[in-house]
Amino acid sequence: MKPSSSISMRRAMTEERDAGWSDWGLLEPLAASAGATSDDAVLAALLDVERALLWADGDLTGRDIDIVAGAFRPEAIDRDALLDGLRTGGVPVIPLVSQLRAIAESVAPGSGPSVHAGATSQDVLDSALVLVASRAIRVARDRLIDAGAALVALAENEARTIAIARTLGQHAAQSTVGVVAAGWLDGVTSAVEEVDALSFPVQLGGAVGTGEGVGPDVRAALAAGLGLDDPGRSWHTERSPILRIAASVAVITAVLGRLGRDVGFLARTEIGEVVLGTTGGSSAMPHKRNPVDAVLLTANGLRAPGLLATVHTAAVSQDARPAGEWHAEWAAFRALLRIAVESSDAAATMLSALTIDHDAVQRSRAISPELQHDETATIAASQRVVGAAVRRFASLSTKDPR
Amino acid sequence: MKPSSSISMRRAMTEERDAGWSDWGLLEPLAASAGATSDDAVLAALLDVERALLWADGDLTGRDIDIVAGAFRPEAIDRDALLDGLRTGGVPVIPLVSQLRAIAESVAPGSGPSVHAGATSQDVLDSALVLVASRAIRVARDRLIDAGAALVALAENEARTIAIARTLGQHAAQSTVGVVAAGWLDGVTSAVEEVDALSFPVQLGGAVGTGEGVGPDVRAALAAGLGLDDPGRSWHTERSPILRIAASVAVITAVLGRLGRDVGFLARTEIGEVVLGTTGGSSAMPHKRNPVDAVLLTANGLRAPGLLATVHTAAVSQDARPAGEWHAEWAAFRALLRIAVESSDAAATMLSALTIDHDAVQRSRAISPELQHDETATIAASQRVVGAAVRRFASLSTKDPR
Amino acid sequence: MKPSSSISMRRAMTEERDAGWSDWGLLEPLAASAGATSDDAVLAALLDVERALLWADGDLTGRDIDIVAGAFRPEAIDRDALLDGLRTGGVPVIPLVSQLRAIAESVAPGSGPSVHAGATSQDVLDSALVLVASRAIRVARDRLIDAGAALVALAENEARTIAIARTLGQHAAQSTVGVVAAGWLDGVTSAVEEVDALSFPVQLGGAVGTGEGVGPDVRAALAAGLGLDDPGRSWHTERSPILRIAASVAVITAVLGRLGRDVGFLARTEIGEVVLGTTGGSSAMPHKRNPVDAVLLTANGLRAPGLLATVHTAAVSQDARPAGEWHAEWAAFRALLRIAVESSDAAATMLSALTIDHDAVQRSRAISPELQHDETATIAASQRVVGAAVRRFASLSTKDPR
Amino acid sequence: MKPSSSISMRRAMTEERDAGWSDWGLLEPLAASAGATSDDAVLAALLDVERALLWADGDLTGRDIDIVAGAFRPEAIDRDALLDGLRTGGVPVIPLVSQLRAIAESVAPGSGPSVHAGATSQDVLDSALVLVASRAIRVARDRLIDAGAALVALAENEARTIAIARTLGQHAAQSTVGVVAAGWLDGVTSAVEEVDALSFPVQLGGAVGTGEGVGPDVRAALAAGLGLDDPGRSWHTERSPILRIAASVAVITAVLGRLGRDVGFLARTEIGEVVLGTTGGSSAMPHKRNPVDAVLLTANGLRAPGLLATVHTAAVSQDARPAGEWHAEWAAFRALLRIAVESSDAAATMLSALTIDHDAVQRSRAISPELQHDETATIAASQRVVGAAVRRFASLSTKDPR
Repeated sequence: MKPSSSISMRRAMTEERDAGWSDWGLLEPLAASAGATSDDAVLAALLDVERALLWADGDLTGRDIDIVAGAFRPEAIDRDALLDGLRTGGVPVIPLVSQLRAIAESVAPGSGPSVHAGATSQDVLDSALVLVASRAIRVARDRLIDAGAALVALAENEARTIAIARTLGQHAAQSTVGVVAAGWLDGVTSAVEEVDALSFPVQLGGAVGTGEGVGPDVRAALAAGLGLDDPGRSWHTERSPILRIAASVAVITAVLGRLGRDVGFLARTEIGEVVLGTTGGSSAMPHKRNPVDAVLLTANGLRAPGLLATVHTAAVSQDARPAGEWHAEWAAFRALLRIAVESSDAAATMLSALTIDHDAVQRSRAISPELQHDETATIAASQRVVGAAVRRFASLSTKDPR
Repeated sequence: MKPSSSISMRRAMTEERDAGWSDWGLLEPLAASAGATSDDAVLAALLDVERALLWADGDLTGRDIDIVAGAFRPEAIDRDALLDGLRTGGVPVIPLVSQLRAIAESVAPGSGPSVHAGATSQDVLDSALVLVASRAIRVARDRLIDAGAALVALAENEARTIAIARTLGQHAAQSTVGVVAAGWLDGVTSAVEEVDALSFPVQLGGAVGTGEGVGPDVRAALAAGLGLDDPGRSWHTERSPILRIAASVAVITAVLGRLGRDVGFLARTEIGEVVLGTTGGSSAMPHKRNPVDAVLLTANGLRAPGLLATVHTAAVSQDARPAGEWHAEWAAFRALLRIAVESSDAAATMLSALTIDHDAVQRSRAISPELQHDETATIAASQRVVGAAVRRFASLSTKDPR
Repeated sequence: MKPSSSISMRRAMTEERDAGWSDWGLLEPLAASAGATSDDAVLAALLDVERALLWADGDLTGRDIDIVAGAFRPEAIDRDALLDGLRTGGVPVIPLVSQLRAIAESVAPGSGPSVHAGATSQDVLDSALVLVASRAIRVARDRLIDAGAALVALAENEARTIAIARTLGQHAAQSTVGVVAAGWLDGVTSAVEEVDALSFPVQLGGAVGTGEGVGPDVRAALAAGLGLDDPGRSWHTERSPILRIAASVAVITAVLGRLGRDVGFLARTEIGEVVLGTTGGSSAMPHKRNPVDAVLLTANGLRAPGLLATVHTAAVSQDARPAGEWHAEWAAFRALLRIAVESSDAAATMLSALTIDHDAVQRSRAISPELQHDETATIAASQRVVGAAVRRFASLSTKDPR
Repeated sequence: MKPSSSISMRRAMTEERDAGWSDWGLLEPLAASAGATSDDAVLAALLDVERALLWADGDLTGRDIDIVAGAFRPEAIDRDALLDGLRTGGVPVIPLVSQLRAIAESVAPGSGPSVHAGATSQDVLDSALVLVASRAIRVARDRLIDAGAALVALAENEARTIAIARTLGQHAAQSTVGVVAAGWLDGVTSAVEEVDALSFPVQLGGAVGTGEGVGPDVRAALAAGLGLDDPGRSWHTERSPILRIAASVAVITAVLGRLGRDVGFLARTEIGEVVLGTTGGSSAMPHKRNPVDAVLLTANGLRAPGLLATVHTAAVSQDARPAGEWHAEWAAFRALLRIAVESSDAAATMLSALTIDHDAVQRSRAISPELQHDETATIAASQRVVGAAVRRFASLSTKDPR
């Protein structure tokens, strides 16, 4: 390298950045499926909550409420002002409420004070994030059901396909491909059971959580308006509802992480028992067929535990609103939701085109002839395992989540 | 310091340690309440499982089974040999089974092969750890109920005691001491609800989880014998049952961690709204009355998230038994159970002797006279909050956990 | 709430989102200072690396290289195509290289194959993320130095201001405000020492890390061109360089998290020993002056540990490039850098306007008259502590980081 | 199962445990090598610190100091009383000092007040844990050097053994076994570099960290007496020294976790490129040869991140001693040290008996004939990589760590 070249190259380097930023998915391979958890989606949820509050507290009436609520549209929000206010106040709701009150005044003079009446920032942000969670989990659940349906077919089709089972990396005993698929299906069923048991509580406690000024009836109306649950209390610093949602979505990424690990192994060049329909290339090795979905499922499985730990750390709260813990929760909670949606989508995509190479299954098995024995008992056990897994999943799929 | 003194001091240093070790609680201030999760408790549970397996699989009959099962006592186990075998095999069950078969042979010749018949190490260790979890959580629940009962009294007694509520460390608005206690009570109730909803599934899948050789009937009998649930499947690598238990016990430490934070603050020298009956001293400052229980509740609240993260990381499993993930789970899962028992015990102890200094409450309130207003609405709101929290707790306390 | 209102409100809810997304800072209160770690900054760094590779490998020469390198501008990149390719290939470098080769061909026909020659995706992404780290840490260091300078003044000014020191929340013994500030300064100095000791190694190993086709001389030239270090090897799966950077930036957020906790406490309504120049409001309580910077410092201190855990989990790598671990590292590593920059900026801002209320310091002290004693020894000790802390910091500040 | 059997079995269950407990290694497969971090080792270190304090502060002189110091032996400590006091005071040093003062009085009347003079509990426990860290890391380093030496031989012997390299589980390109071994060696070298750069600071700040009563000279003498570093300050709440040690030992477990993953894969039944000399059995499958050491390396690699996260969470400290954070640090920090020693020992053991199956290497390679090409460049690159890795390691091994 000539020095002068180095200099001209350095000149070309765009080291200076302006202060603003946005993340648009460059480091998030599955981002395409993450729309339900974007900042846009959070903003929409914040507006939904403020709008629902108008109806719930009944301050405004008649035509005014329709006009004001109708004006609370994302495109009416000055995002730069919102971010400036966020930096100053530490919570996006404070500058948002200022804008909404101004909007209300402009379309229905005198209506400003009715906006956000009785509520505190945490009421709105907590409710909005629960709403985002509820919506994101609905998207994830749909794809989990798709993934499960593909696994039912796989497990049933392969319930009699004898395969070698491995433990600690070593050939261990005779099993079937169906048993492996049933194990994956069990994971998917468990994840859906987890999210189906969730409650999505609205938050409404007012300034310090007592509900003074925003009583049980307003909370119930807000919950009904948003399609959320009424928890019968405020939970500003009693974060178990968030812990429960976070733990459940982390079950999604965990069981799909395991699916990714297993598939990544079974699709290895030396093994090849699983054949993937969708694979990626390589910038250096054009011949490669990388198991991209399996890789991303594994990656998300490894990303979730740290995020879950943060949400749990943030639950060691204090006062009527803590000085940092609550603020630490937002990004981690949202990221957990995001990767759960991503993984559900990637799993369904991957499984829709996954096939078994029966010759490869036989080749693996043939390496350990001493582990072969009469197949009757193995197949009988396999059919029991597959049958149980399919019944577990079937008991879910007709349920409406919420 | 004279050089010679330094030399003689160094001679006195006991740098050389032998290879063996034990932890007896030196770094675990709440260890006294942690008996249910000790290695002794795990060994007892392993023996319980192996004993229950004898009955469940029905190989042995009549007098033999009573004699053999009766010989499976902790004091009959050679612990050094167990640890040697653990190092060699990586799992404590392998050397334990060797010893148990020898014990069985010695008391009932020919019975050795009936020990651990059809089971794999993971069946026994997973079942034993679930048994330990079930027992530890029962201990924790009892103390949570004690803590909750103390909080019911506190919340009801102080429902009309006006106090200042703080958010982000600043005086925020008028509330009551009862509302604060009700918030703590809500946390305790949530934690009990979490553990009351848990399933404690037995594990029995045989070598590679297919149940070949140990069918559904044996699994059901094993579950019944141990007082555990029959999950209808094996879950060797589908770890959602463990994730669910781990997340729920982490809720215990989280809500009690928040209790510890709040109490630690309210017992501060400048605040003093809370007076603790049990406090600790200091090696340097004899005058100090440290809020030891509150400190330990906070500490355990901060320890749990990392442990929960490890259990979740370990769930990204592989094969019919993974090469490391399962092994990473044991210590973290046990530690979570341990600190949940510790915290429940410390919370109940602390709350049994916690009182309110009403003068201090008034002094705090008087700092912000501009936040004082008519008390009627505040007390009405407080009574609603307290009533709701008490009813939530009451709906639990008559339940039998399992 | 009238049913009809609820229905019209629901109609207004914008539940349907399109698949695309971007995060623009809505949940990141300190985002304004995070430009150095945005997706835009990562894209710029990726382009810097590909451009530097052109010079380093010497395939292109003369006018061609200037033309091609000059054409590698962020605005020339089709981001939608990039994201589509990312979803397919799992790594943003693959679709980026396709675009860059097309760009090169269009401005210098025949030059396409010289783009990315010999390199693999991981070479470019790892180098780019290290470049982003290097730049972000430079920004953070500048603000840490600003924060440290403010703390030097504070510690020196208050070295003789007797104050009560607290341990476990209780008044403990006589100290000074200067000692407290010196402790904060020590944290800042430690953080700067950490980052000053860092190495920022370029990555260049080719397809499987052997450097076949991209030898030591190309690696050295690439490092020189980018202003990064030449590690003398490739570290595709030996992630200790990343672990070291991640751990060091987590020291920044930790020491500033502690600063935030301390300041948040000292600025409490009851304490008031610290007065903050910049405070935020509240959506429910207009009178409040929230210690927003302190809150955000605390929040980031609590967010870092989970992110660091993920980076460490991702280091348990495999093969010549793992199937998930590497992919799990990106977002967590970038988020750590982001919050380190944010916290450094917030700390400098906060400290530039932080003052001591000497009356409040005296009031706190007066609560425990039994802990007052002759001040001579306390002040002497304080001056030693402050002096040592100031000298430690001074030994840094003249250093040029890199 | 007959009901009566179930009843008699239940009678045999030893559900009732006494309150005491000890962990003796049942869930810690590598515990045999963990003596340096046991509670016994911590107690010995606490005694070492209290003894060194006697010399450092110079209160006692002549024969008395030898007599008193000589009486501070582990066997003289009443452990039950220690644990009782630990529960009451929250820190083991408080009851230990009481016992030591009584011991001192009994052997040298009037000497009691000279014990622990000027120090606070945190001085002694922090110093003791740093001493334990220093000793544990010395043990780990020795075994890392053993592991590295084995890897040097392996890398050099196999530098010309062409093998297939895999990325994302797929055959990627031609490499050598030597390159793989060199990569492992690089990890070991990085880990040793990390720990060789560590400082092991003594802690001595007195009650609130100002050093009033225990000045710089006493601290320097204490450091010299214990063979620790004098940090020039106290760091009660500035935990970066602990963060640095923790992060470095987590590098040990990370690089060895990766070694375990790679070896576990290469020793798989289908691959068999690596043959392990020491393998474990199975309770269900006597034919199995489990890669126990590799499994445990992987497990410890997965356990470390959560522990490191806890240590980092605990660093967000407060006051002159926090109410929980410090207490949360102990167990996690000790556990990190423990698994680092365990992993270093297991790695050295495993590598001492690890061999390459050249036929298996060839068989793998033959699966992808299209990836074979002229070996000259591959071998040249391999020799460069191996040479660089060996030189890096060699630059360490003559160093004395401390």
